Amino acid sequence: MQKETAILLIHCPDQTGIIRAVTDFLYTNNGNIVYLDQHTETSTGQFFMRIAWQIEGFQIQREKIGEYFDTLLARKFQMTWKLHFSDQKKRMAIFVTKLSHCFYDILYRYRSGEWQLEIPCIISNHQTLQSVAEQFDIPFYHFPITKENKLEQEKQQLALLKEHQVDLIVLARYMQIVTGDFISHYPFKIINIHHSFLPAFVGSKPYHAAYDRGVKIIGATSHYVTEDLDAGPIIEQGVSHVSHKEDVKAFIRKGKDIEKIVLSKAIAKDLEHKILVYNNRTVVFD
Amino acid sequence: MQKETAILLIHCPDQTGIIRAVTDFLYTNNGNIVYLDQHTETSTGQFFMRIAWQIEGFQIQREKIGEYFDTLLARKFQMTWKLHFSDQKKRMAIFVTKLSHCFYDILYRYRSGEWQLEIPCIISNHQTLQSVAEQFDIPFYHFPITKENKLEQEKQQLALLKEHQVDLIVLARYMQIVTGDFISHYPFKIINIHHSFLPAFVGSKPYHAAYDRGVKIIGATSHYVTEDLDAGPIIEQGVSHVSHKEDVKAFIRKGKDIEKIVLSKAIAKDLEHKILVYNNRTVVFD
Amino acid sequence: MQKETAILLIHCPDQTGIIRAVTDFLYTNNGNIVYLDQHTETSTGQFFMRIAWQIEGFQIQREKIGEYFDTLLARKFQMTWKLHFSDQKKRMAIFVTKLSHCFYDILYRYRSGEWQLEIPCIISNHQTLQSVAEQFDIPFYHFPITKENKLEQEKQQLALLKEHQVDLIVLARYMQIVTGDFISHYPFKIINIHHSFLPAFVGSKPYHAAYDRGVKIIGATSHYVTEDLDAGPIIEQGVSHVSHKEDVKAFIRKGKDIEKIVLSKAIAKDLEHKILVYNNRTVVFD
Amino acid sequence: MQKETAILLIHCPDQTGIIRAVTDFLYTNNGNIVYLDQHTETSTGQFFMRIAWQIEGFQIQREKIGEYFDTLLARKFQMTWKLHFSDQKKRMAIFVTKLSHCFYDILYRYRSGEWQLEIPCIISNHQTLQSVAEQFDIPFYHFPITKENKLEQEKQQLALLKEHQVDLIVLARYMQIVTGDFISHYPFKIINIHHSFLPAFVGSKPYHAAYDRGVKIIGATSHYVTEDLDAGPIIEQGVSHVSHKEDVKAFIRKGKDIEKIVLSKAIAKDLEHKILVYNNRTVVFD
Repeated sequence: MQKETAILLIHCPDQTGIIRAVTDFLYTNNGNIVYLDQHTETSTGQFFMRIAWQIEGFQIQREKIGEYFDTLLARKFQMTWKLHFSDQKKRMAIFVTKLSHCFYDILYRYRSGEWQLEIPCIISNHQTLQSVAEQFDIPFYHFPITKENKLEQEKQQLALLKEHQVDLIVLARYMQIVTGDFISHYPFKIINIHHSFLPAFVGSKPYHAAYDRGVKIIGATSHYVTEDLDAGPIIEQGVSHVSHKEDVKAFIRKGKDIEKIVLSKAIAKDLEHKILVYNNRTVVFD
Repeated sequence: MQKETAILLIHCPDQTGIIRAVTDFLYTNNGNIVYLDQHTETSTGQFFMRIAWQIEGFQIQREKIGEYFDTLLARKFQMTWKLHFSDQKKRMAIFVTKLSHCFYDILYRYRSGEWQLEIPCIISNHQTLQSVAEQFDIPFYHFPITKENKLEQEKQQLALLKEHQVDLIVLARYMQIVTGDFISHYPFKIINIHHSFLPAFVGSKPYHAAYDRGVKIIGATSHYVTEDLDAGPIIEQGVSHVSHKEDVKAFIRKGKDIEKIVLSKAIAKDLEHKILVYNNRTVVFD
Repeated sequence: MQKETAILLIHCPDQTGIIRAVTDFLYTNNGNIVYLDQHTETSTGQFFMRIAWQIEGFQIQREKIGEYFDTLLARKFQMTWKLHFSDQKKRMAIFVTKLSHCFYDILYRYRSGEWQLEIPCIISNHQTLQSVAEQFDIPFYHFPITKENKLEQEKQQLALLKEHQVDLIVLARYMQIVTGDFISHYPFKIINIHHSFLPAFVGSKPYHAAYDRGVKIIGATSHYVTEDLDAGPIIEQGVSHVSHKEDVKAFIRKGKDIEKIVLSKAIAKDLEHKILVYNNRTVVFD
Repeated sequence: MQKETAILLIHCPDQTGIIRAVTDFLYTNNGNIVYLDQHTETSTGQFFMRIAWQIEGFQIQREKIGEYFDTLLARKFQMTWKLHFSDQKKRMAIFVTKLSHCFYDILYRYRSGEWQLEIPCIISNHQTLQSVAEQFDIPFYHFPITKENKLEQEKQQLALLKEHQVDLIVLARYMQIVTGDFISHYPFKIINIHHSFLPAFVGSKPYHAAYDRGVKIIGATSHYVTEDLDAGPIIEQGVSHVSHKEDVKAFIRKGKDIEKIVLSKAIAKDLEHKILVYNNRTVVFD
């Protein structure tokens, strides 16, 4: 059986001795490393690292690891860091509208136990997918959105998310633009799927735009949501060739298969604590 | 041995009976069809067709085929059409600057007999690749370009192209923008390779822009050159996944392999008379 | 709205005049063609065609089309042909065991109306997925299989399939080999998904075999089931790159996404009457 | 400018403390690490590592690094290791027969300076490509092979390779099977390109076999040559979709583009000292 692990995500200005210092810290305290990957971005001189080790046998008790790491290493190297434990399940909310392909793909993985995850609630601006939520026994909340009520509805949504202790939000073809205020409560914690290979075809109706431009490849992009529309850090992209024989409807049909796979891959990486964001780009460890 | 064929490229408003009429015309005159593909674009109601048949045994003599086809069919169906013969080699000029990857890929295919083609001349704004041209025994012409002499140099180039009876131009990473006047002499007869998946990253330094945006897929696009920069009808696109481990240099290195394959595929389709342009989109037959 | 169409799938020895004859038959009887694709396989001299036209306005009544086509055209050209109508829904049975990824992918498309289809029954040799079938309100039948009862159980299954008027069977990771006798009742009407890019890794545990061989690409193959194990005509294949960092578990996880897309694409092509089988190969029209 | 580096490739049984020990060794001796990647294969409990650091400033002199590393670290951890220096160019021989696509692709990269490499000689069993070798000013040696003279010719080839101090051999569509004796002089130093996605279609005429099987994907595989035909450790694989419209000739044409890219990628990885072989599988670092 998989032993429980502690997982550190780190970034800091690159300098000599970081890997040695971190591995030495773990070695000295009897930490059995089960994952180590790191990357130095030469363009920014930034160092990134993900390291995981077994909790069992580690000489620093779980509650104290953060404090010790911060004191002994993080300050010295000016590290930004996050500590996770593999036995903590993230709590993810799904936002949907009417399209079900990404929604089903997420729910099937959840139900089949593919992911380490809780889904406490589903939020939608329409009632179309309520029956699907019920089929999977997950509470469904309907928040109709109009220009007038948007801010108020987001306030209600935030309260609901807080109540459900949600720490990750997925916009699974949610056809509403969320406000900067809303986003500020979940920085780099909202994953969106955009149905084009960004930065091409930002905004609405990207398949129509792709058809009009006569492209020979269509795609989809999953990214963290920031205040700039469709401009947040990209996590994963996928594409498929198209020919003149395919019209907009065919683009949409083919695109759905790309979207759902690309979104689910991004969610998986987030759940495994394998993504670091820096400078509006992502480091996505294998 | 492959028998010589006549090839018709047709487009016209869609209506009932076109395929029947064209195949009847060939059948009646003893034409043995070796290729037939057609497509109706529902968004524009336009019909496209490529049909090829053996010249040998066809009852209308070669020089008269165009006239007969126009009289008996094209006018009735308001067809725009072009007639080619498989034994006519296109004469293609290559424009280059300093990068050699696409250049070599084209020259190797030419030399190894992969393509039905003559390359009477190579034109460059630098002398860097002159030795490669000489290595392949193809006349090389050096036209240094400045803001001041651009129009004059293009005039000289046009004269040279006319002299060499060039009917297809390939910009194989030619780092100059050609003028609208120049393009007007070769409408949909100039193929360019752009080093991004258009319409993302139009203009110069697309790999730098792609890196800055943090994309997870890079690409290349071959298209016919029109007056609008990087906005002409797309012929072929290719992509490759990239990760955070790859910097701009790595993008450029990986991109070269995509570019040369994508450009050569587009050239091949053009040489086989398999491309129709309509409404700034292409129909590219298999 | 999409008008209802008649669809003909034809193959016969190639000869001059087939397309003309078929299009003339339709034109003469006021048939408005909405799809025409054909292919001549030079290696076997075989001609393949798919043609569809609107039923409305066609001068031969629906029930008589087959008879007329056979009399006037099929015999003359020695055609093998099948006639379908777009308003007839296929009735498809799904066979599953314990894995749910393909199962959910099929059910979601069914439920969301992506396919023209009825699913009257689900058959399994285990009860694991019964709750999923119930979740989608589809009758689930449990047929436990042992060496001893296999032939008897298949007899029962065949009776059930007949009762449900099933005309297409999908083995969605069904972990039993069906007998030649069973297959003979559904020739080229049983679609299987094999979890490797065939012909590599025939048989059981292909991901383990792929890992042991050290491949850098894994894949999946959907094919019609014939008596020869994993050797039936291939409909669709998909692949994904893998690296040394991925172990067998990772292959299996990544493979599931390929399998479900590849299987669903094959089902879609079958439902659209776009597949012809000849010489253990398929012609899959666009 | 890129500073010169020392590069260590290591594998050993996995145990706690390896990374710490190696990074400590470098840190203590003032080694500035510019690359570190490692991998633990859980199925075999084997640890793999590639680490590179700047020679300038390192306190152990270049000639002594191997000895020190062996004494202080390798023995303790039972490491198998190789030390390379980035300023040492590999000397690579190319074996060809008649097909030129891989040959040109290698020569263009060599000529354009893409690779850190010397090509002292080209060996062929035919004279077809002699003119290409001359075009690139590289000595060409013709060794006609018959059943009778094969062993004797290989002896001559080995003498020539030794004379030219060759340490890497590329079989660029060399249509001869080399003997086990020949291979034993270059263990995991001979790279071959096989024109199928192995293990499918081992042996000759794989495109014909692929066509006969009716596959929808074709591919190519580069691998180190071992005594078992087409069964050596795989370095890189590439694929392309094909349809029923493509015959064997089309497979061959399309396959050439895959082959040359796949072979060149494998060569690049070898030249960068990024490949480790273990248990007939490769670890190919990014």
